[in-house]
Amino acid sequence: MSLLVVGSVAFDNVETPFGKVERALGGSALYFSASASYFTQVNLVAVVGDDFPEEATDFLRSRNVDLEGLRRTEGETFCWKGRYGFDLNEAVTLDTQLNVFGDFHPELPAEYRKSSHVFLANIDPELQLEVLRQVENPEFVALDTMNFWIESKREALVRVLAEVDMVLINETEARQLAGNPNIVQAANTVLEMGPKYVVIKRGEYGALLFSRDDEPFFAPAYPLESVFDPTGAGDTFAGGVLGYLSNHGEVNADNLRQAMILGGVMASFCVQKFSFNNLRTLEDGEIAERFKRFAKLVHFNGLES
Amino acid sequence: MSLLVVGSVAFDNVETPFGKVERALGGSALYFSASASYFTQVNLVAVVGDDFPEEATDFLRSRNVDLEGLRRTEGETFCWKGRYGFDLNEAVTLDTQLNVFGDFHPELPAEYRKSSHVFLANIDPELQLEVLRQVENPEFVALDTMNFWIESKREALVRVLAEVDMVLINETEARQLAGNPNIVQAANTVLEMGPKYVVIKRGEYGALLFSRDDEPFFAPAYPLESVFDPTGAGDTFAGGVLGYLSNHGEVNADNLRQAMILGGVMASFCVQKFSFNNLRTLEDGEIAERFKRFAKLVHFNGLES
Repeated sequence: MSLLVVGSVAFDNVETPFGKVERALGGSALYFSASASYFTQVNLVAVVGDDFPEEATDFLRSRNVDLEGLRRTEGETFCWKGRYGFDLNEAVTLDTQLNVFGDFHPELPAEYRKSSHVFLANIDPELQLEVLRQVENPEFVALDTMNFWIESKREALVRVLAEVDMVLINETEARQLAGNPNIVQAANTVLEMGPKYVVIKRGEYGALLFSRDDEPFFAPAYPLESVFDPTGAGDTFAGGVLGYLSNHGEVNADNLRQAMILGGVMASFCVQKFSFNNLRTLEDGEIAERFKRFAKLVHFNGLES
Repeated sequence: MSLLVVGSVAFDNVETPFGKVERALGGSALYFSASASYFTQVNLVAVVGDDFPEEATDFLRSRNVDLEGLRRTEGETFCWKGRYGFDLNEAVTLDTQLNVFGDFHPELPAEYRKSSHVFLANIDPELQLEVLRQVENPEFVALDTMNFWIESKREALVRVLAEVDMVLINETEARQLAGNPNIVQAANTVLEMGPKYVVIKRGEYGALLFSRDDEPFFAPAYPLESVFDPTGAGDTFAGGVLGYLSNHGEVNADNLRQAMILGGVMASFCVQKFSFNNLRTLEDGEIAERFKRFAKLVHFNGLES
C-alpha cells in the first residue's frame, strides 16, 4: 500500500495572538505528508523553488516520504501570509505569492501511478483531474477543496467529485458547495455528487463523517489548553485519516471511524506548535496515548433499561 | 428527590429562516420544566401576567410540574422577540418587554425549600442569591447566566458562583466571564470561582463538561436534517441534565456523562419544532431510542495494540 498526495509546499508567514513565525514550512502536501508518514508510505508530488531548504527534504526523507515527485525549479517557493485572531477557527489571508506553484502541472513518476490511495489536496480541480488521469487503478481517492474553487471552477470541481471516494471539506464550504445552510442536507447533496463519504471539518469543534449507508459519525477535536497555530490542521487531519486507511485494507465503518479519530489526534498535535514542528518527532506511544484520551473524552455508559 | 427551577416564563415572538411564530410559550423556566419533567418532579417558581393561558398551566400540571410557586399577577407576561439567520447558533434580540417580570422577587413555598436539586435559570444573580437563601439544604445547585449579568452584575454573579455546584454557560460567555479566549483555560478559571463542574454550551456543536477531578467530557449535538427553532435549546439541555441527576442520587462521573447526553437528547427534540411543542408528548421510548443514536454517533473501537 502507498499513499499519493498532490498539493502545495509553501512558506507560511503566520501571526496568531500567541506569536508569529516567518517563512515556516507549510503547504497542504507538507502537513499531509508529515502526518500520514506515521501510518504509511507517502509519495509526494509538489513543486518548490530553489530557495527550498535541504533541511526540509532531509526531514521528509527521514520520515520515509518518497520525494521523487517533488520537483525543484528555478524561482521562489509558494508563499502564504495569514493572521488569526482569538477565534482561531478562521484565518485572514494577507498575501498569497504563487511563485513556482503558478505553473504547476503535476507529473507522476512511474512508480507513483500504482499508488493504492490518493489524496488530492486543495488545488485547482483541473489539476486534480490531471492527477486522476495518471493514476492507474487506485483503491481509494479523497480530495479537499475550498471556496475559491467552488466559486471559480465549479464545473471542473463537480467532474472530479464524481470520481472520488471521499471529500473532506470545511463546514462553511460544504454549505456553499451544496447551496444549503443545513449541514446534514448539505452533506447529502454532496454525497449525491459522487463521493461515498463526506467529511465535514469544523475546526476546534471536530469533524462529521457522512456516508451513504451508515449513520453519521462525529469525531471530536480535543479541547486543548494551548493552541498555538491552527495552520495546516485540516491537512494534518486528512493525513491521519488517509494514512490510517491506506494501511488497513478494506474501508469499512470501523476503520473509517478509527481513521477519523486518528485524524483528530494528529491535528491536536499539530496545533500545539507553529508549523508542523510538533509532527517531527512523535512516538507511536504518544499517538496511542492521545487516541485513548479521545476515547475517554466521548465515553459514556448506556442507560439501564 | 425534587428539582426546583427559578426563571422566566414568557411569550416569544421568533423568526427563523424556516418560519415565524407569535406569542409562543417560552422562557427559561418553561423550557427547563418541560424537559426535566421527563425525569423527575419539578417545582416551578416564576411569575406570569393575567394574559397567561390556562392551556399552558394545564399542560405543565399534566407533566407533573408543581405550580404552587407560579405567581399570577396583574399585567402582561414577559415578552421576548428575536430573530435567527441561517446561522442558528445566535439569536438577535429585537425587543424585550419585562412586564410583570420586572418586579419579580422569587418567594419559595414552604415545600419547595426542601428541594434536593436547584436550577437557577438565567436571571439577575441577585435574585439567584435570594433563592439560595430560601433553600434549606440542597444537594446540588446549578446556574445559568449571560453576558448582560457578566457585564452589569459581576460582583453578585461571583458571589453566587461561589455557592453553586455547576454552572452551565455559553462558550462566548465563558470566555467573557474568565477574560480568556482559550476555552479550557476559561473553564478552569470558572472552576476556581467555586463550582465543581462547568458545562460549556456550544449550540449545534454540543457541550463540554469540565470538572476539578476528571478529564473533560464532550457531549455532541446530534446533526439534524431539520432544525426549526433553536430557542430554548440551552434550557432544555439543562432540564435534561438536572432532571436526570435529581433522579439518580449521588453525582459521579458516570451519571454526569449520561446526564449530559440526555441534555443533548432533549435539546435535539426541542429544536425540531417551534417553542417546546416537541417536548409535549414524548414517549420514554423515543428518548431511549435517541440516546442510543447519540451513542452510535460517537462510537469507535480501540486500536489493536
